[in-house]
Amino acid sequence: MTRREPIGPIARPGDAIGILGGGQLGRMLAMAAADLGLDVHIFTPEADSPAARVAKRTWVADWSDTAALKEFADSIVAATLEFENVPVAAADSIEAAGKPMRPNGRTLSRTQDRLAEKMFLREIGIEPAPFARVDGPGEIEAALKLLGGNAVLKSRFSGYDGKGQVRLKGEAPSNAWADVGAGPSIMEAWITHDREISVVAARGSDGAFVAFDPPENDHSGGILRRSSFPSSAPQRVLDEAMRLTKRLADALDYVGVLALELFLTTDGKLLANEFAPRVHNSGHWTQDACKTGQFEQHIRAVCGWPLGDPSRHSDGEMINLLGEHALGWENHLAQGAKLHLYGKRHAANGRKMGHVTRLRPKA
Amino acid sequence: MTRREPIGPIARPGDAIGILGGGQLGRMLAMAAADLGLDVHIFTPEADSPAARVAKRTWVADWSDTAALKEFADSIVAATLEFENVPVAAADSIEAAGKPMRPNGRTLSRTQDRLAEKMFLREIGIEPAPFARVDGPGEIEAALKLLGGNAVLKSRFSGYDGKGQVRLKGEAPSNAWADVGAGPSIMEAWITHDREISVVAARGSDGAFVAFDPPENDHSGGILRRSSFPSSAPQRVLDEAMRLTKRLADALDYVGVLALELFLTTDGKLLANEFAPRVHNSGHWTQDACKTGQFEQHIRAVCGWPLGDPSRHSDGEMINLLGEHALGWENHLAQGAKLHLYGKRHAANGRKMGHVTRLRPKA
Repeated sequence: MTRREPIGPIARPGDAIGILGGGQLGRMLAMAAADLGLDVHIFTPEADSPAARVAKRTWVADWSDTAALKEFADSIVAATLEFENVPVAAADSIEAAGKPMRPNGRTLSRTQDRLAEKMFLREIGIEPAPFARVDGPGEIEAALKLLGGNAVLKSRFSGYDGKGQVRLKGEAPSNAWADVGAGPSIMEAWITHDREISVVAARGSDGAFVAFDPPENDHSGGILRRSSFPSSAPQRVLDEAMRLTKRLADALDYVGVLALELFLTTDGKLLANEFAPRVHNSGHWTQDACKTGQFEQHIRAVCGWPLGDPSRHSDGEMINLLGEHALGWENHLAQGAKLHLYGKRHAANGRKMGHVTRLRPKA
Repeated sequence: MTRREPIGPIARPGDAIGILGGGQLGRMLAMAAADLGLDVHIFTPEADSPAARVAKRTWVADWSDTAALKEFADSIVAATLEFENVPVAAADSIEAAGKPMRPNGRTLSRTQDRLAEKMFLREIGIEPAPFARVDGPGEIEAALKLLGGNAVLKSRFSGYDGKGQVRLKGEAPSNAWADVGAGPSIMEAWITHDREISVVAARGSDGAFVAFDPPENDHSGGILRRSSFPSSAPQRVLDEAMRLTKRLADALDYVGVLALELFLTTDGKLLANEFAPRVHNSGHWTQDACKTGQFEQHIRAVCGWPLGDPSRHSDGEMINLLGEHALGWENHLAQGAKLHLYGKRHAANGRKMGHVTRLRPKA
């Protein structure tokens, strides 16, 4: 049986909460937590990480360093994470030390395997885009045929932002298997979609569910480029997307912010792409355009506090600054955009360096 | 001659900027700077200060520790401060190490002496409330008579939030001189005012001047309790208040955010109370209700970057949480207010522990 999450406050202002991971999501979570009077401790294998520079304490250690994890867990009252590929064992070790971990290792194990993720979605009545399991190079041809000759091959267990993925059209290139890491894989049908939307929502420890207005997302090369809010999709579609997300959160007994990415097909159907058990890039605009942003909302949920009002005071768009685009920071400042930079030291090609939010009065 | 401030960018994202002081203003400045991709170094005599817990590095040392100040200055590209009683020598030492200090020691020396501050305001055509210099206990009686028998006696050189102040009405109590520290003092007439407003504004290194909509402030016991925005004072009065603040900023060749507190008398006159060469409590709501908040605006100015759009997307009020009022944090969270807590360890009576902002749609 699933262990139930404790209900109500598990942290008070002045307490220290932990974040597993030191990237930009951890950085923005840490600042939201500090704004609520919490101390923040970071655990990350990365030296000089973006989150460490805004936190009270940081453990720089490998995910397998059980002594460091124990010391970290002993220093905090509860923990969360900033990316879903935190090893399940590391998340479990926080609970083993007697501290709530939100989300927990059980949720992580459902999302770290793309195949398990899609089967879980289907099981709870959220239809994913058609997919096929691919366990060896010899299975690629048949899977591609099954999915209509237009698909993406992905590693089941790793990769993000379009890494470890191969686009297949008509015929699979001979290097496809090697390119996804030559391990257990999944092939996903390429969906001709009208729009891509996401629901960023929070579920409290008491089961309360609160969703932000769903944004509409533009991806390119597997990386989110732009989210505009609100989506121009019909309200009944957005309502349905939020219902599906609530179903997902309830099924996971989830506590915190999560995101469900969905395709709206050209014939009007919603198909799930994937879900993320964390704050989400397509929700970054909420900190500038809503009474409560996703980072604060997540911290409230993790601490067992009442969720905040997600209502939007402005319309607008969020644009990711990738790699060298972040060098345009002066222009963004001058043009009245709300600029957020993550403090990353190297602007690698396609790397998420920051984002800008442009606001306009609510229509 | 006044040294002129350099014009244009003096810091880039990834650079470290310094903040003198470790309190809540430093904490909120540090987070605003981090959000723009800057690293933040704090210098403060206080161990475990609110700002240190969200900064990359902290020097805990006395203001007179010139070696520590030099090391601090060498680690940054520019510095600012979070309270106006930073010793002028400490501010000067940053400039002596070749790093811009905004605001600089010359500005500080104008505000650390209440008498010099009021004389300067008068000199540039901003009328302060009537005042009298008091250099000894024997001068109290005559000063009080001169000011109409209704006044406040204050130390010239120290005190904030109502500390080191004695209210005088009709007759001066015999302990008044001792209560203000038995040193050089100033007596200020008690102004019967219709409203108390403040202008929180920024001046860039290029002389650009941008003001937030002036809030209306309620004080009690010398401590700000509530700022409501926008003020209901007539627009011509608000325009005049902003003109006076621009005159002040220009006269100081000021770079950064500053605040001018003003009384609107019952007969419709604006009289200056005091000015603060820093972000200001009465501007805390701007981070929740404006496109650019005062903390980001100050960092932009200090770095020589273009100032941001101060326009307001919401109306509302900011309420200080003093001492034990901060214990009501759960109610504030539940009631939909935007809660900010400063991470202070002890809730002394009257101590500023946090604030809440309540937003409502713009009228």
